[in-house]
Amino acid sequence: MKHILVLGAGRSSTSLINYLLENAKENDWKVVIGEKDTSIARKKFKDADVIEFDINDKALATAQITNAQLVISMLPASLHPIVAGICAEIGRDMLTASYISPEIKALSDQFAASGNQCIMELGLDPGIDHMSAMRVLDRIKAAGHTLTSFETFTGGLLAEDKLKENPWAYKFTWNPRNVVLAGTGNVKFLQESRFKYIPYHKLFKRTEIIHIPGYGHFEGYANRDSLKYLDLYKLRGIQTLYRGTLRRPGFCKAWDIFVQLGATDDTYEMENVSEMTHRQFINSFLMFNPHDSVELKLAHYLNIGLESDEMYKLNWLNIFSEEPVGLDKGTPAQILEHILKKKWTLDDTDKDMIVMWHKFSYLDNGRPKEIQAHMIALGDDPVNTAMSKTVGLPLAIAAKMILQGKIKTTGVSIPTQQEIYEPILDELENMGFEFSERETVS
Amino acid sequence: MKHILVLGAGRSSTSLINYLLENAKENDWKVVIGEKDTSIARKKFKDADVIEFDINDKALATAQITNAQLVISMLPASLHPIVAGICAEIGRDMLTASYISPEIKALSDQFAASGNQCIMELGLDPGIDHMSAMRVLDRIKAAGHTLTSFETFTGGLLAEDKLKENPWAYKFTWNPRNVVLAGTGNVKFLQESRFKYIPYHKLFKRTEIIHIPGYGHFEGYANRDSLKYLDLYKLRGIQTLYRGTLRRPGFCKAWDIFVQLGATDDTYEMENVSEMTHRQFINSFLMFNPHDSVELKLAHYLNIGLESDEMYKLNWLNIFSEEPVGLDKGTPAQILEHILKKKWTLDDTDKDMIVMWHKFSYLDNGRPKEIQAHMIALGDDPVNTAMSKTVGLPLAIAAKMILQGKIKTTGVSIPTQQEIYEPILDELENMGFEFSERETVS
Repeated sequence: MKHILVLGAGRSSTSLINYLLENAKENDWKVVIGEKDTSIARKKFKDADVIEFDINDKALATAQITNAQLVISMLPASLHPIVAGICAEIGRDMLTASYISPEIKALSDQFAASGNQCIMELGLDPGIDHMSAMRVLDRIKAAGHTLTSFETFTGGLLAEDKLKENPWAYKFTWNPRNVVLAGTGNVKFLQESRFKYIPYHKLFKRTEIIHIPGYGHFEGYANRDSLKYLDLYKLRGIQTLYRGTLRRPGFCKAWDIFVQLGATDDTYEMENVSEMTHRQFINSFLMFNPHDSVELKLAHYLNIGLESDEMYKLNWLNIFSEEPVGLDKGTPAQILEHILKKKWTLDDTDKDMIVMWHKFSYLDNGRPKEIQAHMIALGDDPVNTAMSKTVGLPLAIAAKMILQGKIKTTGVSIPTQQEIYEPILDELENMGFEFSERETVS
Repeated sequence: MKHILVLGAGRSSTSLINYLLENAKENDWKVVIGEKDTSIARKKFKDADVIEFDINDKALATAQITNAQLVISMLPASLHPIVAGICAEIGRDMLTASYISPEIKALSDQFAASGNQCIMELGLDPGIDHMSAMRVLDRIKAAGHTLTSFETFTGGLLAEDKLKENPWAYKFTWNPRNVVLAGTGNVKFLQESRFKYIPYHKLFKRTEIIHIPGYGHFEGYANRDSLKYLDLYKLRGIQTLYRGTLRRPGFCKAWDIFVQLGATDDTYEMENVSEMTHRQFINSFLMFNPHDSVELKLAHYLNIGLESDEMYKLNWLNIFSEEPVGLDKGTPAQILEHILKKKWTLDDTDKDMIVMWHKFSYLDNGRPKEIQAHMIALGDDPVNTAMSKTVGLPLAIAAKMILQGKIKTTGVSIPTQQEIYEPILDELENMGFEFSERETVS
């Protein structure tokens, strides 16, 4: 019996764990869930073994990992290096849906020495984006064509159903903290062979419109450092390379208000948080002037209309109300997250949606051609979300393949190799997560 | 004979070392200059002992420091903790003009144990600002008045002489890197009992106008975290507390262009720097569009007129020219600094100027009153700058007082105590660095 240890049973682990449990008998697996608070996990996953797991108790954690053949870490990304360190030391396979870090990369030889592997970035984005892009990129390369441009966008959104009641057309379907901090850091990309850089405070102004047939228009903003994909995807020589995040139209212009105010800053603690109201939070970023309203000061400061769509969105969030924030302390980003959660948490009737879109441009014997591909995934309810499925299922399928001995790679890697992406994409397709492609002569 | 070791003989050490040399005979001092490159220092200071000093050679550095009674470190601020560590360990007094750091603060008990002292922030800003503010604050407190507001601004500027030829009315008179990075980090202050926060990308838009009788109008922007002065100056309960930096009017609006572009970012290395021109540097922050000029793209992006004063200032810097940058690699901030130095370096006929301005508001038996105080210092030439005098002379005077046994404090401190500030301000006044005060009923 093969023993799989899943660390963390939060919202994003639902589909992963359910897949493993459903396939356990047939594959002779024992699925063990490690959680700090075991009670919720026991209620949610009745067929799983749930054990108390605390990464800070290294001796116990090592013993628990030793019992497993394979560890899937759904812990916060900052804890992956500790798990990876243990796996590398005692020789266990490991999977995560998080970005590879230099710390984990450095363990590659140690994993390889014992014939083990650690595959990172095996979720949605990063994850399915790598795999689906590499499948088309490898096909274009194999046909002898010259790739000139690659653009890729992904968004975790609300499905259509109740959009009209929510002027943002958005709720949190992924780690709220990451949504609030999205875009901080450097944004770099390549456009027509020119390197381009966008500072955080301009990011949500420099959006693009993406049209997906049958699904309408979306708004995209640039995501982190696209340049590192020059090497990851072997794209040196390409003229345009752009990775982005999708939102529904109008989101970015309103979100930019928080960015401009400094309300997404996570580098300092604010004063007097325990007594702060939503309105005071916003006012602390505005000029002092006791004779004008917070609304007018904000509209004037950021040059937006008092009756604009953006102000309507802010009002809908109760951002100008004297409702207490409800925290004792916090950075601006933590306080904003807390305020947003009051309105942006999925309710029982909400469904989410994942949109992924790629555009590849290439020369076929000098003739410019273009492939557009997109995948749409829909959630069933606020627990079985599209996010949970698209993050968890690639991990689950990869786990199955590893335990069946079908992945031969050793060391630390991401799923850009055909050996890994082909079978995962095939199984995802069978489960309904497929890309629609159309090819055009541009 | 008492032995003073000055580490670093760069531009900002000129007045400090000259003062020490001029007063050496009378006070029976031996002045030793420690420099990595001794030749320039030997040429500049003919009467001093110049020794080769390298902080990375800790054994030799310790031996050289052991020979001295007192060490004045003019090294880059990041190296002060190493010097302070040695001084604390072997029991030597130490002075710097840099901000105190937690690392150095932690050495206080060790300095005190051997009866030694380390006084930090003994230059201009921080330095004279502390001393001149505390003198008035202590006086207001001693008179039993209630302080309600304290605002303080300092600027290192160009003197009037040649302003008309330079539309920025500015050149570097202090560490250019610090000027380019000024304002990065968090800006916090207190206004009418409300905590206010300004993000970096809004800092240069939220300026104030300061008028100084006889010297005209200046533009002030907020400087770092004013809130820490609540405790440093014992101001808890005050309603308004604001520290700022002065520039000549119009500077901030033009400088903000670099901030908005992201050209002052110091967190990543740009690509292809060795082949980059000024124009390409600017273009890398703008949208791709081969049909429009860099000038128009910038003007449109930042909503400024093509013939505006700001565009004139940028043109004067040759920022749109195809002149090669002249670096092999660099962050945006390093590249911008390099471009700016081509025009913003003092020439033989340039003179600099220091402006410091304080405003204190208080209640005298319930009656609102106000004291404004300002100090203007002028440079003689590009070597004997006002900056070098105002940074170096407080250090030199403090050194004299310590060697004469007139400062009894031990441990790590900043010059907010009367015992220290009073004699230093008195001697500075005798040398012509005096504050003009006017008191008004507001």
